[in-house]
Amino acid sequence: MPEINASVAVADLLLTRSDVLDAKERLAGRVRRTPVVRSEDLDRRAGAQLWLKAENLQRGGSFKLRGALLAVERLAAAGSVGVVAQSTGNHAIAVALAARELGIPAALVLPEDAAPTKIRRIREAGAEVVLAGTVLAERIAVVEDLRVIRGYDVVDPYQNPDVVAGQGTATAELLDQVRAEGRRLDAVVVPVGGGSAVAGACLAAAGEHVAVVAAEPSAVPALTEALRSGQPVNVPVRPTIADGLRPDRIGRLPFDTCREALAEVLTVDEAEIAESMCVALTHARLLIEPAAATALAAALRLAVAPRWQGRNIGVLLSGGNVEESLVAALLTEYAAQ
Amino acid sequence: MPEINASVAVADLLLTRSDVLDAKERLAGRVRRTPVVRSEDLDRRAGAQLWLKAENLQRGGSFKLRGALLAVERLAAAGSVGVVAQSTGNHAIAVALAARELGIPAALVLPEDAAPTKIRRIREAGAEVVLAGTVLAERIAVVEDLRVIRGYDVVDPYQNPDVVAGQGTATAELLDQVRAEGRRLDAVVVPVGGGSAVAGACLAAAGEHVAVVAAEPSAVPALTEALRSGQPVNVPVRPTIADGLRPDRIGRLPFDTCREALAEVLTVDEAEIAESMCVALTHARLLIEPAAATALAAALRLAVAPRWQGRNIGVLLSGGNVEESLVAALLTEYAAQ
Repeated sequence: MPEINASVAVADLLLTRSDVLDAKERLAGRVRRTPVVRSEDLDRRAGAQLWLKAENLQRGGSFKLRGALLAVERLAAAGSVGVVAQSTGNHAIAVALAARELGIPAALVLPEDAAPTKIRRIREAGAEVVLAGTVLAERIAVVEDLRVIRGYDVVDPYQNPDVVAGQGTATAELLDQVRAEGRRLDAVVVPVGGGSAVAGACLAAAGEHVAVVAAEPSAVPALTEALRSGQPVNVPVRPTIADGLRPDRIGRLPFDTCREALAEVLTVDEAEIAESMCVALTHARLLIEPAAATALAAALRLAVAPRWQGRNIGVLLSGGNVEESLVAALLTEYAAQ
Repeated sequence: MPEINASVAVADLLLTRSDVLDAKERLAGRVRRTPVVRSEDLDRRAGAQLWLKAENLQRGGSFKLRGALLAVERLAAAGSVGVVAQSTGNHAIAVALAARELGIPAALVLPEDAAPTKIRRIREAGAEVVLAGTVLAERIAVVEDLRVIRGYDVVDPYQNPDVVAGQGTATAELLDQVRAEGRRLDAVVVPVGGGSAVAGACLAAAGEHVAVVAAEPSAVPALTEALRSGQPVNVPVRPTIADGLRPDRIGRLPFDTCREALAEVLTVDEAEIAESMCVALTHARLLIEPAAATALAAALRLAVAPRWQGRNIGVLLSGGNVEESLVAALLTEYAAQ
């Protein structure tokens, strides 16, 4: 199995917290400083203080704009003729928006079963959508073709250092915002797909005495299996509603970062993800996508442990791009309970 | 027809903008400074810049905590043995929370068809719930009984000056927050039930060159009819999903304020309210209750007029206390369109 997107040689790169702080400065005023939402209902349910970083309210509907803006900006400044990226959806939306803002073309490679909402948003941003297979390797092959044929630059969602540092700014902001309330987070729970969010969180939290906890669907335990194997491995892809967390292999850079700095990884099942999406809606009045609900589900599970009871737990609500019909179906079931 | 809650003599009172600014100081750090949410999707749909004041994320799930805290605080400081209030729900939740925080008992009088979610929240705050009829006059009679029998102080939702000034702080904050982004609102759209929100908005906006626009369901056009008649009148109560806007008569104080300062009142039908609730969910990723959706529906209608195209329009998303089953049903219908 070739390394993911070998065309970008970053496997040896070590990022640090200062890269995230630099990214935060570069992004100032260009992305939304999304609110941290509290809910007494949710805290009561959790038995802990939950601080919800509402990146579902970010431009483009997810935190991915942070990393994409920085990466595409650097490429555009270097004279790029266009960018190409593969994604299960949110990174693609983010790259499309960033490319439009920076005035260069973008082609985005998504799985054939990508969420229609996400495809629509990419096209609305004026970018080209290419659908390719259902697993990561198939998308990567198409990205490589577009790179060679068109001379486009690849914006890797898990390996690009600008992307990882940029995603880390969501956690850095959360830490700042909780501190501004006179509190301190004991842990932050972050969803894992390809790994950029959790790697960014590990960097942002370095030296802050905050436990970084990763959350992934038990259907696609790419990080759990990588940690068990001592290296990124491909896991069988089983169906999950968390379409944003479908990558079947964790990136090398995220893996190396997690191996160093991660406190824990929790897997949650589909029922927990579905319920947490409804809980976010009814308790915190936020529409989040299943990937974000995966983090909330893990936070609720984490809070049950005596050592976390009553503690301050941050949750990265990574995005809010979700099909209306899915929300309607899950909520109908939830309301009938 | 007796004046609403004649036991509180405020009909002659004139509030001013400085009362709202005083209220803002008294509330500092005690209520949430709720975020102002933006959505490119929504702006595109509206053809204007919408600034959504997300009071659905306020403690207690609505902006009503603002006024209730101030009113109950003043009564508690004066040695009150308990408070009583009538409400379609959100004012009751707010008074219950305020009474708990200030350590005095509270009895809340709601219509028999009040939203179960709202009743549950009041009981969770440790207050007593009394259900009485379906129209305002029936609830007021029960409030008067409790006042006389128990010696409780009435916290009128539409007439109490602390309540009206407190509710105005939501609009005052919104104006500050938009200003902090280097912009200026041209209009602010506020839902009308008994009228405290719109009266507070008129006070907050005085001298700010912001048009205050009221929104009410066409099923219960209490303000429209009052303005037409030159005084508060009872209107027939027809069914509306906007349970928070069911009062069949506007308060005297709100009416007097609106007559002076209101730019416009728009009525919206049930289909527009239902659709706007789904639009808020899918475009702005916020769960709002139908009362808040009434304001959003009016803002979307307002923005169609040439004079408002491209302008900056604030919307008071007053609350987020809504039945899960209603959201599920409306969203199922919306997704099928």
